[in-house]
Amino acid sequence: AIQTVECEAPPKKDEKKKSSKTAEDDKKRKLEGLTPDSPMRLRMEAFNKQLQAEITARLEKLDGVGKFKVDSWNRVEGGDGISMVLQDGKVFEKAGVGVSVVYGMLPPAAVAQMRAQHPNIAATKEAMPFFATGISCVIHPHNPNAPTVHFNYRYFELGSEDGGEPVSWWFGGGCDLTPTILYEEDAVHFHRVIKEACDKHDPRYYRDFKKWCDEYFYIPHRGERRGVGGIFFDDLDDKKPDELFAFVQTCGKAFLDQYVPIMERRKDMPFSDDDKHWQQIRRGRYVEFNLVYDRGTKFGLLTPGARIESILMTMPLTARWEYMHEPDLKAHARLMETLRVPREWIPL
Amino acid sequence: AIQTVECEAPPKKDEKKKSSKTAEDDKKRKLEGLTPDSPMRLRMEAFNKQLQAEITARLEKLDGVGKFKVDSWNRVEGGDGISMVLQDGKVFEKAGVGVSVVYGMLPPAAVAQMRAQHPNIAATKEAMPFFATGISCVIHPHNPNAPTVHFNYRYFELGSEDGGEPVSWWFGGGCDLTPTILYEEDAVHFHRVIKEACDKHDPRYYRDFKKWCDEYFYIPHRGERRGVGGIFFDDLDDKKPDELFAFVQTCGKAFLDQYVPIMERRKDMPFSDDDKHWQQIRRGRYVEFNLVYDRGTKFGLLTPGARIESILMTMPLTARWEYMHEPDLKAHARLMETLRVPREWIPL
Repeated sequence: AIQTVECEAPPKKDEKKKSSKTAEDDKKRKLEGLTPDSPMRLRMEAFNKQLQAEITARLEKLDGVGKFKVDSWNRVEGGDGISMVLQDGKVFEKAGVGVSVVYGMLPPAAVAQMRAQHPNIAATKEAMPFFATGISCVIHPHNPNAPTVHFNYRYFELGSEDGGEPVSWWFGGGCDLTPTILYEEDAVHFHRVIKEACDKHDPRYYRDFKKWCDEYFYIPHRGERRGVGGIFFDDLDDKKPDELFAFVQTCGKAFLDQYVPIMERRKDMPFSDDDKHWQQIRRGRYVEFNLVYDRGTKFGLLTPGARIESILMTMPLTARWEYMHEPDLKAHARLMETLRVPREWIPL
Repeated sequence: AIQTVECEAPPKKDEKKKSSKTAEDDKKRKLEGLTPDSPMRLRMEAFNKQLQAEITARLEKLDGVGKFKVDSWNRVEGGDGISMVLQDGKVFEKAGVGVSVVYGMLPPAAVAQMRAQHPNIAATKEAMPFFATGISCVIHPHNPNAPTVHFNYRYFELGSEDGGEPVSWWFGGGCDLTPTILYEEDAVHFHRVIKEACDKHDPRYYRDFKKWCDEYFYIPHRGERRGVGGIFFDDLDDKKPDELFAFVQTCGKAFLDQYVPIMERRKDMPFSDDDKHWQQIRRGRYVEFNLVYDRGTKFGLLTPGARIESILMTMPLTARWEYMHEPDLKAHARLMETLRVPREWIPL
């Protein structure tokens, strides 16, 4: 399935874009105020924007110096986005939190692809209206003892024209932690908090989505994973929308509890030049995963008119590639063992 | 067509690899000594290895301090490779020159793809023996006044089993220059030398291959080219093998004349922190092109058992991604104009 990417499609000269009826109706609905009966897409959008505001405020407090630069935009066809990036702060090298809302038309080839996961979508040779909203976040701290983190939660709707029910809809998302130096207790904490969030909604979620995460963040050409995992899920539509929305909300709200305690104990730890150097090598692997394998990034790069700065705000500020580099400290080599063979951080 | 990549396929446990008969025969031929009547694959291999030795010796002299680290390997199925990398020298941040020789079997799907460009390949449901040899080189200097350069020349053969003539064969390659700071005279010099090389063989080559190069090194998601171009060609089989081999040799031998004079005048020029910073941003674009679009890199990353360190030796030592970065010096912005609209450096 397609991941939500921050994208802005500026109108092409030879093409008249117009706002969809759904987008127009939704504008009115928002002015009237949302209720628990409002369409899911509006409630998820509102949740994303609220979460973005909470998280960026907390991260600014944690940094103490750096401030988020805020870029907002509107799409002519409907939808908008807010990219917030804190660059070169005291604690954070680069932290990006983006929200996007997209009303658009999905080409028949893309619709056909989605039928594989969502058989209730009828075969069609016509483009179908779609809606997508998501929040995504990548944080790269300065201190090599402090891990990079990523999360993304998104909602997708197909065929909800003229205010009717969508033909198909689903949720996707996940979170994962990428340390430079392995602290087992950080990985355990990160997993424990998201497992508790999952357990509130379904006892199978953590086990299944932890495994999916280990598979998704695999870098085949390196034979290693990007980090120590977390959860990953997509195409989730097997419960009532409100139940799944509640699950995604619990996950999103868990993020600060997952990450802030780790940052509090790592951000001011002393580190060596070797640690910083190793961090830069690991940043290179992060770039490799994002540019070569990440679905959201690939989809974004292939989308004409996509807002490239929003798609690539996940990139680290700096990265390094050395020929035949091998970790020369035991502490660094220990991380690699974990990236090659994923571990169960929490007893299941 | 497939580009040659340095690749080493270590034998899998469940698969017995054996050397192809062609590879075995070629070993004997090499021991007996090559003549102008020897198979093209052996002459191209010998040329590549000789060129690699010449270029690395000259680059070491230019650097004055750094030395190339040499890694050689053999493939069980036949073939070998030499990766030479100079890292963190006085002049060069990272310079890699690699040669590879691969005897292998091409899966039917890949054979089918090649029929599009080479209709003399018969339709088949079986894997076909192939041979590939290439030399590739990427040089990233420290000084931001000095440009990054890349070249690659390669020869491919399909179906040459048991010492017979190949079913199909072709040459490919090219060279291109990637400045951080634009010096028109450097671009003109680089293009003039390769145009003179082309003109010795065919009056259309420079015009056609310069255009192909501008197209190949385009980064769609940035709306810019990787650098100021050079030449690019592939699937070249429309003349006698010896004529095309002579052309490729002239191009390969032209490289030092293309690049060394530029380096001589740029390597010790003073530069500012702004220049170095801009260089790091441009290095990021180089990484984006290589990981997202470059055929050789993509093919290498997808090849099971490929030698990843050889494939990614083209990466810069360091790179940088800033959110919403805009060049703040006029000299830097001037480069961007050239990357957005390619120029004719030499009157045609």
